[in-house]
Amino acid sequence: VSRLSLNQITTQHWSLREAVEGCAEAGIGRIAVTREKVGEPGLSEAVRMLGDAGLEVTSLHVGGRFPAATAAERRERRDDNRRAVDEAAELGAPVLSLLAGPSPDRDLDAARGMVEDGIAELIPYAAERAVTLGIEPLHPTFAGDRSVVVTLGEANDLLDRLDSPAVGVTIDAYHVWWDPALLPQVERAAGRIAGYHVDDWPVPNDCPFLSRAMMGDGIIDLPRLTAAVDRAGYAGPIEVEIFNDEIWRQPGRRVLGLVKERYREWIEPALTAAG
Amino acid sequence: VSRLSLNQITTQHWSLREAVEGCAEAGIGRIAVTREKVGEPGLSEAVRMLGDAGLEVTSLHVGGRFPAATAAERRERRDDNRRAVDEAAELGAPVLSLLAGPSPDRDLDAARGMVEDGIAELIPYAAERAVTLGIEPLHPTFAGDRSVVVTLGEANDLLDRLDSPAVGVTIDAYHVWWDPALLPQVERAAGRIAGYHVDDWPVPNDCPFLSRAMMGDGIIDLPRLTAAVDRAGYAGPIEVEIFNDEIWRQPGRRVLGLVKERYREWIEPALTAAG
Repeated sequence: VSRLSLNQITTQHWSLREAVEGCAEAGIGRIAVTREKVGEPGLSEAVRMLGDAGLEVTSLHVGGRFPAATAAERRERRDDNRRAVDEAAELGAPVLSLLAGPSPDRDLDAARGMVEDGIAELIPYAAERAVTLGIEPLHPTFAGDRSVVVTLGEANDLLDRLDSPAVGVTIDAYHVWWDPALLPQVERAAGRIAGYHVDDWPVPNDCPFLSRAMMGDGIIDLPRLTAAVDRAGYAGPIEVEIFNDEIWRQPGRRVLGLVKERYREWIEPALTAAG
Repeated sequence: VSRLSLNQITTQHWSLREAVEGCAEAGIGRIAVTREKVGEPGLSEAVRMLGDAGLEVTSLHVGGRFPAATAAERRERRDDNRRAVDEAAELGAPVLSLLAGPSPDRDLDAARGMVEDGIAELIPYAAERAVTLGIEPLHPTFAGDRSVVVTLGEANDLLDRLDSPAVGVTIDAYHVWWDPALLPQVERAAGRIAGYHVDDWPVPNDCPFLSRAMMGDGIIDLPRLTAAVDRAGYAGPIEVEIFNDEIWRQPGRRVLGLVKERYREWIEPALTAAG
């Protein structure tokens, strides 16, 4: 399945070992790992396990969470983000996904400034270790508790100002599909797309955090978005990243089967690059 | 309480009569009514009831829902919207709130086109009856099931193209607060703001449909937004419109007391116009 990468959040109840074995069995050659799951066996054991299986690690999830009320807390985040970059380098993950983080108070502009400052400060550290930072705008439904960066346009503006090849944008269908400026902003991201995540938005979707749908089970025009990302020149891995309680409760093998099937149906036909 | 209008959605379990009596008792002189609640006693009885109480009707909620899969369905919506305009005129409501409606399929662009066509078609009918159409962009969390118009920028673009004094934009804090382009878009809306709704976004807010908070109980910078709406020259009624299961279960009198208290604390100090 060309370019498909399993973000292990999709099989949340699997350990790293189970996810690695599951990918091998399903013939999926790429995986995006989370710091939590990697931390369970420990970093060196995780590296060995992934290497033995010959799995390509496409990204590490997640750094960021820059805004904080005090300078001391912001320093703690900075240190933690450096550790995340080190972990990504050790894992051979070319990309560290960045979640902007929420605002500590009502001042979103100030929080957005802290995100920019935090990334700017992290760039040299990441660049030295050949890790690309992938800032991921989240759906505005998460603006209060997870990310003050909520549109692709906002992420592109950030990239313009940061002006560094060590930082790019991660485009996740679930987070961006609603945006009237979607296609022009995907085009504008050309050359700095650090990742592409696929999933779907179900209708109704009254509680969006844990109701992310499998590709094809929602209303996102995935072929159109995928073609736009492809036209923008992105030829990297495509991660399936699904936060969904119901999917998490299903056996991982069955989930991986469905992931492959839906990827072939909804994503692959729109791709021109083999990656 | 200058300019405060109770949107009767805030007291969802009250009949129109109870809401009218509640407003009188609380010294609130303005009310925004819903078609459902007005329909219970019937339009003429509702008009009489509101007139007897000397209540100013600030808007009628809600018309719109333009996109539909077939031309026949779109004609039905058109007819229903004309009835809504008639009702607003009969009630003496200067504004009919418009909900864009969701897309019938994955093609958001087409659905957005249907919204524009639907409003354009409704404009002469509304203008003849002196009813202003207030298009209300909803938070993108409602993009799948309630409205394809999800940003103030998108609404402003629509207004530019429709180019008619019979249509304006209704700004609701809950729907627009997250937008990095918020303040410039409020400024751009100057002269065409048809309504301003206040409420709050709680944190966390995992299920946003029925968790809208009372002003002050969330993270929206209401004084800043209110000052921006004020600077844009809006001097009309300010509606409190709260969809919240928990608030709905409280006694209406207590809710109205809290509405007044929070309005005085969070909204009124930012106003320069008496309205």
